Parts: sequence; structure tokens; C-alpha cells
Amino acid sequence: MRDAYVLGAGQSSFGSFPDETYLSLFDDAFDAAMDSVESPLSPESIDEAFLGTLGVGGRQIGLSGPAVTEHVGLHGIPTSRVENACAASGYAFRQAVTAIRSGMADVALAGGYEVMTDASSDHTRWWLGVSGETEWERTSGTTFAGVYAQMASAHMDEYDTTVEDLSRVAVKNHANGAQNPKAHLGFECSLEDAVSAPAVADPLNLYHCCPTTDGASAVLVASEEVAREHADTPIRVAGCGASSGRVGLFQRGSLTSVPASTRAGEAAYEAAGIGPDDLDFAEVHDCFAIAELLAYEDLGFCDRGEAGRLLREGVTDPDGELPTNTSGGLKSKGHPIGATGTGQIVEAFDQLRGEAHVQVDDPKYGLTHNVGGSGGGATVHIFEKEDAEGSA
Amino acid sequence: MRDAYVLGAGQSSFGSFPDETYLSLFDDAFDAAMDSVESPLSPESIDEAFLGTLGVGGRQIGLSGPAVTEHVGLHGIPTSRVENACAASGYAFRQAVTAIRSGMADVALAGGYEVMTDASSDHTRWWLGVSGETEWERTSGTTFAGVYAQMASAHMDEYDTTVEDLSRVAVKNHANGAQNPKAHLGFECSLEDAVSAPAVADPLNLYHCCPTTDGASAVLVASEEVAREHADTPIRVAGCGASSGRVGLFQRGSLTSVPASTRAGEAAYEAAGIGPDDLDFAEVHDCFAIAELLAYEDLGFCDRGEAGRLLREGVTDPDGELPTNTSGGLKSKGHPIGATGTGQIVEAFDQLRGEAHVQVDDPKYGLTHNVGGSGGGATVHIFEKEDAEGSA
Repeated sequence: MRDAYVLGAGQSSFGSFPDETYLSLFDDAFDAAMDSVESPLSPESIDEAFLGTLGVGGRQIGLSGPAVTEHVGLHGIPTSRVENACAASGYAFRQAVTAIRSGMADVALAGGYEVMTDASSDHTRWWLGVSGETEWERTSGTTFAGVYAQMASAHMDEYDTTVEDLSRVAVKNHANGAQNPKAHLGFECSLEDAVSAPAVADPLNLYHCCPTTDGASAVLVASEEVAREHADTPIRVAGCGASSGRVGLFQRGSLTSVPASTRAGEAAYEAAGIGPDDLDFAEVHDCFAIAELLAYEDLGFCDRGEAGRLLREGVTDPDGELPTNTSGGLKSKGHPIGATGTGQIVEAFDQLRGEAHVQVDDPKYGLTHNVGGSGGGATVHIFEKEDAEGSA
Repeated sequence: MRDAYVLGAGQSSFGSFPDETYLSLFDDAFDAAMDSVESPLSPESIDEAFLGTLGVGGRQIGLSGPAVTEHVGLHGIPTSRVENACAASGYAFRQAVTAIRSGMADVALAGGYEVMTDASSDHTRWWLGVSGETEWERTSGTTFAGVYAQMASAHMDEYDTTVEDLSRVAVKNHANGAQNPKAHLGFECSLEDAVSAPAVADPLNLYHCCPTTDGASAVLVASEEVAREHADTPIRVAGCGASSGRVGLFQRGSLTSVPASTRAGEAAYEAAGIGPDDLDFAEVHDCFAIAELLAYEDLGFCDRGEAGRLLREGVTDPDGELPTNTSGGLKSKGHPIGATGTGQIVEAFDQLRGEAHVQVDDPKYGLTHNVGGSGGGATVHIFEKEDAEGSA
């Protein structure tokens, strides 16, 4: 099985863009990814594409993948749309890596796009609801924030996690996102603001929920040969973990863990031959504040129930032992559903090349963690900076 | 790049099933695929799944892939939903093959599902419309049948193709489907009936259009080692071609060819090291009668403009040189969008094992051809029966 490398990665600005379309946003992301390659790569080198989107929004619903690749000038290549709710492009990236490893492609494009802010709030609520389980959860009137609110309540009950703990996710991620010019909500917030914001789905308030966002992201994955030809500091895909879980929260044994995340993390660590202690940074799926706490525990950053302590002690701050969501995360950078997974990889790529807005000191290993729905699917990818000669 | 094999393949009945769901239909397909494996395979052997569905229908919209795999007991495996309109599971199969070739999986599941008949006819019309181009084609009021009607008109104009030629597709495919107990419209029709049916989108009439269908299909793809362990006559995936094209018909240079089909076919022939003359049978994408004629020409079964002659001369009849759509095709077996691509592979598998309902005499090579929308995407797969020792 040959190795896969990240050759380039870029994103559009994330935000609310009434004058843009999924096509124009993807254009921006694709250009940014192509521009990030150290020595120029021809678009004709791209053999196949995998594009993530939830894409329920009244525009191109079927076949949006080919619509996007044809639009950016990648004529005739095999293109698949991948949909695993919010983990769509985490899975699209996995498939691009698989294509490289198989030898069926030497360069593969992974990416995602979503336009969310042009829908009415009612429609957006419905739309997000489709990421939950439909037969019982959604038809019972549970909103998607409501699903995560149940997880937050259970975690607070089981581990004495507090509203302050949840709010520290917002404070940290907004502080990071304020440095990121492509962030949707690029402003800081105080702990006081984050604690006292209006309720969305109790105990989650406005600062415990990510925004609905327009945006796109793109990542170029390549064989080792192509990667060494085009980059002095190749970024190796050291591990790709993925797993499914029951889509409905009520179908799972616990409200305070996401088994798909745990399994995906274990698979990624095993493939990379490292553990959480070896990580220099992480981008985790903080669609709601509680999701970041669950990620810490599911991915082995700390023991069960210890996530609040990690935040209080600043372990995941930029100057802590394991800086997490230096991009601003879903909370501040934004969460354009299908663009999020590969958007996280843009940050990992920038960090490992020393070009991030909130730069970690000389990182070697970084992790990205992308969750579909409330845990019906998850991917965990581990990236490694190699030196020019390839000795890791 | 290691070889991939089809180890098992099965489908649910195709039809109108108000008492079934996408889950129960996939259950049937999965059981049929598992039962078709010569020596029993444990479900725990399945490493990853790729599932195709268009899936716009008011039920599980996000994350239906994991919902399905968890439902059939494949807990925790990486599962992706793939959507390329009507080519969804043709692409899902490609990704399963890629996973085997990469070494990331030893057994991968490809499949698809669709429930279409519980929607109102208005909703179904809208739903099918999403496979066309949205910004101009759909909003101008063009139905999906209308898109293919334009292709039919152009072919009739350019090549003197007649309504009788179109109707012969229905007569042939219904005759085949009448032998298939899992076909949706398993009855014969006369040329007179097919010529004189009421118009749907002129020049296409009711017998020139496939039905809207409920159904599911599943294919088990495996490494050579696993295939030889479980089957005496392994079916090798000799070639996997895929290509995209402009989604809107108005964006393409010709109305009488589908460039994505041509490119996918060329890639598949090249990979398999054979040409159309070497094929013993084919399953092609006959969503509308004109689509089967275009497939003949795009896939090199005949020269441009000669498809009508092929039908008149019976070349694609079961006793002809290149029997096509022996399953009944989309026209008679039915077209449950996401289930169609892997449904075609069920027929190829049955043919190559000598177990088809309309059996071709000792075939060695078979082809399946699956189109997304009016040609925004296409896959062509070529299958080869090997002997027990593997000398092809």
C-alpha cells in the first residue's frame, strides 16, 4: 500500500455570502489549494475528485460533484459526491487517500462546499435536522441542537461539567478565530458573554453553538513521487481512521461518548503508529461546545469526565500541550457542513508548513476529527511533517 | 495494484412496495448478496461500505449510509453514502474496488437503495428533476423526461432513427424482464403497444420511459485471496471506467452522444485489455429508450447513427451477438435510482456464473454501464469469468 501525501490545501472565506454560489465558493477554495502547492501543479494532473456536501437546499441536489469539477475546469474526470452529513468531506478525503493508495490516481482532489445562509431559519432548522435520525428523533420534534443538548446535560450530570466549561470552548475558539481572516465569526468573546448568552437548547446557549455558514475547501492528495516532485516538506497522511455508529442518539448505549469517534481515533493512531501524547495540535469537531469536550475524551486526550479540566488548565490553548482548533474551529471559523472536514485539513496543512495564523511551535504530528450528525459517522486523520529526504 | 473480484451480488425485488422501507429493502439485497457467495462469508469480514442513493424523499436524508449498514448488523465499519444521481451505485462500486485495490479493505460492500413510489407524482417529478441541471434546465420547467426527449428528437433528426427503433428497446427489455421474477414490470409488450402508448415527453411515450421503482441491491467485492477462498469461479473486475460531463444538456456540444459514457467506456476497455467485440453481454442504462441507443454508440457497439439498425437486426437480443439488458434493464426490471448501478452488476454476476434468468451461452466478458442524470457522470465496469486456477 503506497503512501499518500497532502500536496496543497485551501479554502474560501467562511461566512454569509449572499452574492456567492457553491460554484464560486469552490472556485476560491480550488484556487487557494492549487496556489498552495510549492511548485506549480497542472490541473490536468488531477485524476479523480471526491466532494462532500449535505446539499439539501433547493439548488443543484443531484450531481453537484460533477457540476463543481466541470466548473473549475477539471473536465471529464471521475467525480463522486460523498455525503455523510457533517463528516462528508472527512470521508471524501479518506476516499482520495484510498484512490492514491490503490494506484488508480496519482493526484486526487478532496473537498466540500455548502451554502446555508440563504435558507430561511425554518428551512435551516429542518435541513440540519436531517443529520439526526429521521424516523423517531426528527419526527418527535427534536432539533439538531436538541440532540447535542441532551449529550451536554448527561455530561454535566455524570461528570459535574459546568456551563463555564462549555463556555471556555467558545472563548478559546473565538480567540483563535479572531486571528483567522477567513473565519466566519472572527471576533473574541469573554467568558462572561459566553456564559450568559441566550439559550438555544438548554443547557446550550448561543455561544455553545456554531453558526450556519457558506464556504468551500479543497485538498490535493498525491502519491509520494508527485509529492516529492512538488514540495520540499511533504505532508504525509500517516493515518486515516473512520467508523460508523447508530445514527439516532437513542439507539446508543451512552449519551456521553461518540463510539464512532473513538473507533476512528483508534484506527488512525494505530495506522500512524503514534498515540494522543505524540500530537502537536488537533482540529476537532466542535459543532456544539459539548462536542469538543466529547472529542477530548473519545480521542484519548484525557480520561472520561476530564475534558472540563483540560479546558480549565489551558491544555488545549495555543500555548498548551495540545493546542486544539487553532483555526477557530467550527464555532468561530464556521461550519459550512460539507466543507468542514477538508477545511480542518487546510489548518493541519498550514500548521505543518508553519503558515498558520495561530502557529504552533514546529509541529510534527497533527490530527483532524470530523463527525457526521451526532455520531452516525466519524473520520480521524493524522498528518506528519517529513523532512525533504523523507525520514520522518 | 492488486485485483478486485466480485464475491457475491444480490438484489431485492424491484417494484412498488408500500409496506417496505429503504432499510427492509436493503436487508433483502444484503441477504441475497451474502447467500450468493459460494462458501459462507462472515459479515464481520466486511471492512468498509459504499452505498449509493439519490435519497431526496422525506426520510433519512443525511447519513443514510450508516443507517443502512448499522441496520443490517455491520456495526462500526466506515460507511460512505455516494450520490451521483442515477449513477450513484455505479460509483459506489468503483470506490469499493478502489478500497480493495488499495489494500485498505479485503472485503468491501457496494450497494444502493431507493424508495420512490410513496411520493406524489408531483414530488417524484420534482425529485427526478434534481438529476438535471438546476440553474437553467430545471428552473425553465424542463422535466427529466424532457431532457431525454430532446436527445431523442435530435437523434431521430440526425440519423433517421424512428419511433419503431425506440420502441424495440421496450419490446426487447420487457421480453427479458418477463423472465425475471424480481422485475418491476415483468410483462411482455408488443411493438404495436410500444409504438402507440400515450406521450410522456414527445417523442418519448410511456413505453419509452422506465418506471419509478423501490428497490435495493448489494455487491460484495473482495481481494483475490478472499475470492479464491470463497469461490470456485471467481469473477474478476477487469476494468473500471468513470467520467464526468457537464450536467446540463445545453452545456454540451452534441445532443446525440454522452461524452461521459464514451470516456468511461474507453477507460474500462483499456483497463480490461479488450474491446466491445470481446463482450458476451452488456447491461446498459436504458432510463429512456433513447438512452439505450446512445449507449450502443457511445460504448462502441456500433458506429454513430447505427443503433437503430442493431435493434432491427436483433444484435442485442438474447440470441444475438451482444445480448443487452437480459435482466430487463431499467425499462422492465425497474430503476430504483441508487440501486440501479449495483443492480446491473447483480445481472453480470449471475450471467458469468450461468445463473441468469435469460442466460447467455457460456459468457466470459460482460459490461455494465450506469449514467448519472443525462450524462453528468457515468461508470462502465467490465467483468471477467476466470477459471478456478485464475488463468483468464
